Amino acid sequence: MQQERCSSSDRPLDPGCLQARDAERSADRPACAPVDFPVAVVLPAGGSGERVGLPTPKQFCTIFNRPLISYTIQAFERLPWIGTVVVVVSKENHDLMLNIVQKFNHTKVNVIHGGTTRHRSIFNGLQAFCSTSNSLTPKPKVVIIHDAVRPFVEEDLLLKITLAAKEQGASGAIRPLVSTIIATSSEGYLDHSLERAKYRASEMPQGFLYDIIFQAYQRCSEFDFEFGSECLHLALQYCGVNAKLIEGPPTLWKVTYKRDLAAAEAIIKETLSRSACIIAGAEAEAAELAKTLQKNLNMMETDVIPCAKESNAEYLSKTQNFIHLSVCQRYMHTQTTGSNFLGVLEMVKHFEDTDHTRLYPVVIVWVQLNMTKQSVDSQKTDELAAFRSLASEVIQGNVLLYGIQIEHTKVPEQWERSVERLTQITVALIRDRNAALTGQLLHV
Amino acid sequence: MQQERCSSSDRPLDPGCLQARDAERSADRPACAPVDFPVAVVLPAGGSGERVGLPTPKQFCTIFNRPLISYTIQAFERLPWIGTVVVVVSKENHDLMLNIVQKFNHTKVNVIHGGTTRHRSIFNGLQAFCSTSNSLTPKPKVVIIHDAVRPFVEEDLLLKITLAAKEQGASGAIRPLVSTIIATSSEGYLDHSLERAKYRASEMPQGFLYDIIFQAYQRCSEFDFEFGSECLHLALQYCGVNAKLIEGPPTLWKVTYKRDLAAAEAIIKETLSRSACIIAGAEAEAAELAKTLQKNLNMMETDVIPCAKESNAEYLSKTQNFIHLSVCQRYMHTQTTGSNFLGVLEMVKHFEDTDHTRLYPVVIVWVQLNMTKQSVDSQKTDELAAFRSLASEVIQGNVLLYGIQIEHTKVPEQWERSVERLTQITVALIRDRNAALTGQLLHV
Repeated sequence: MQQERCSSSDRPLDPGCLQARDAERSADRPACAPVDFPVAVVLPAGGSGERVGLPTPKQFCTIFNRPLISYTIQAFERLPWIGTVVVVVSKENHDLMLNIVQKFNHTKVNVIHGGTTRHRSIFNGLQAFCSTSNSLTPKPKVVIIHDAVRPFVEEDLLLKITLAAKEQGASGAIRPLVSTIIATSSEGYLDHSLERAKYRASEMPQGFLYDIIFQAYQRCSEFDFEFGSECLHLALQYCGVNAKLIEGPPTLWKVTYKRDLAAAEAIIKETLSRSACIIAGAEAEAAELAKTLQKNLNMMETDVIPCAKESNAEYLSKTQNFIHLSVCQRYMHTQTTGSNFLGVLEMVKHFEDTDHTRLYPVVIVWVQLNMTKQSVDSQKTDELAAFRSLASEVIQGNVLLYGIQIEHTKVPEQWERSVERLTQITVALIRDRNAALTGQLLHV
Repeated sequence: MQQERCSSSDRPLDPGCLQARDAERSADRPACAPVDFPVAVVLPAGGSGERVGLPTPKQFCTIFNRPLISYTIQAFERLPWIGTVVVVVSKENHDLMLNIVQKFNHTKVNVIHGGTTRHRSIFNGLQAFCSTSNSLTPKPKVVIIHDAVRPFVEEDLLLKITLAAKEQGASGAIRPLVSTIIATSSEGYLDHSLERAKYRASEMPQGFLYDIIFQAYQRCSEFDFEFGSECLHLALQYCGVNAKLIEGPPTLWKVTYKRDLAAAEAIIKETLSRSACIIAGAEAEAAELAKTLQKNLNMMETDVIPCAKESNAEYLSKTQNFIHLSVCQRYMHTQTTGSNFLGVLEMVKHFEDTDHTRLYPVVIVWVQLNMTKQSVDSQKTDELAAFRSLASEVIQGNVLLYGIQIEHTKVPEQWERSVERLTQITVALIRDRNAALTGQLLHV
């Protein structure tokens, strides 16, 4: 089980992929080693999301048909040294949450009912570990408390928070203040400004020795449960523990407003667009085009492989973006197209078998290089219809299929311009991952 | 001149359009009336944008080929009661800024050299009004200080800030705290948390009686010029003025990180996609389709007009999105297409004459309803080539031209599905405004 987690955390196109890469780089001091004690996570997710300005609570708002909270869960689940993730939701969202857990195969998650306030919900989450009737026992040494709406938490920070919590009893992520903080008079006038350098914004995640935070909640008042602002304060007030503060990266930010959803989507899109795999086929013209495309796509990491067969599974699993080249030779038109469809179908089958599209959509850009003198527009309609029908079929399995036709020419400048345009369109399709445009056959 | 500004501020598809609409609604108490004194703006724009993680300072990062600072300038320029906008930039960005002012026709802007810190830059901006050799004199009664990277400031708030500054001497926008603020010990431990309810984040814009803020800068120390955090504090410390604090909307936020640029782009895209104009032409089938499209596009405000002639200038100026319907009748193919191109060209000409695309790109979705039994794919290649060439031509004038072909059918369910798909593709093209996909002829 642990082994399996480790390998899935290497999946490079996860928005949390920086973690995986960092971990790879420091392979001589493996990230998992220092955490030789049980660590669990409590994710309070009962918020109503009023500030987002959307009818759906923000943790359930989707990006690529997947709720934000699933991205957050996965940021923890991928780490082998993290055990149970307790997700605390309101009663009305319980079934919704169970569906999410099942659909996105979150195997470490336990869904618990929340309380009427954030603090009560966290306490409910913590209590889940003591309940003798609950399979979550034994209780963890360290518990991490995080927000469901901060999906981009990185392993490096989680490790620091966990180790500091183990050592100090409590720890929390902080960020420099973006705005000046001012005290207001009761009449709405400026009283004084705070000296910015002395203060920090307290963010999530926070880490605690389980016994410390549990005790703090047992001792705290009804007022704290109702109005208390954060756990670090409770640990200080009721257990005398001054939390160790750890400066986190800007990616810690919390999806608070509607615009933050757009920002989160942009981050996920950018991360998903960092690499691509070009499937060149056997023909010389395609190999040549693949080489030029690879050069043009210099902002991406690209691999070129001859075909999408099992033997190339390693390349197929490395990315969510595929550029499938095919050549339309004179008089070979229909046959070649047929075999390309087969190539696409093989890939889709492979993705199904390996569960490759469960978390993120795959883009396949099917590039047809037309070597005939016939115009591409005189193509058979039934071929186009078949392509569109294939696209509308594979989108069910989270595969976004687009087509681009490019006419071959022997005039160098013209060819260069065409390939440049092909690059632009390909990049646009990969970046945008627009479901409404699948099945379109575009022209360079 | 005042008159002209007023009418341009009514342009509804400006990202600052909420202002214009609010002003319209309260027509019986006109927004301009209470400001019967001169108001100017100082926009310090010398920042290096390190936090954005981009090589370009964030105020010069572009959205739709237009720098962020131009959006901010326009948010002021559109208000008739605001006079000069002094933009303070570093010496190396002086020419860049002058180019921006010219390209986007910012007629109220004066570009001034900045100092080494934000406070020195603001003081330079203020001094521009006293210099006798400068045409900016006479000095304003109230000066608004704002950030170049807060493009979405609304008229309502600017009005409140201005009036409060006139009355109290100083005023500033505030927002509730998103995070808990904590004081840290020198060793990096939690010292204490602040009681969240007593504090606010101090944001921009801020307003001052010109004499107050000028005096504060004349009196303040070198330390203030180097390290001082904000103007409200200087007004308090050196002139004894407690600023009136005014709660602003969430749109006040500052483009600080790279993700904020994506959020700003999303807001602009959403605002630009709120309305559309359907040009239905004369034929009955198109009129029918226009009606169904209008029903489907219920998330947008839509107008249907018969043609894009001068007489419909009012409708053309109301939106940045046009859906141009045309019908391919049996045997009339080439001729009809020719006349559609003419319609598109007429629109483009009109946009040029009215400067309609200077600030925001226009989308034209050219929908071709195919009534012939011939497949659309058997269309003449030279027609397609003409369409693509037209698209690559008009994009120079900030017009994004896309094509969609839809086959007519008398089978009701099939037709309904087709129009639904047409709607989805149209909405996707309007929302994304993707320049790489112009000139493509998509198929429903």
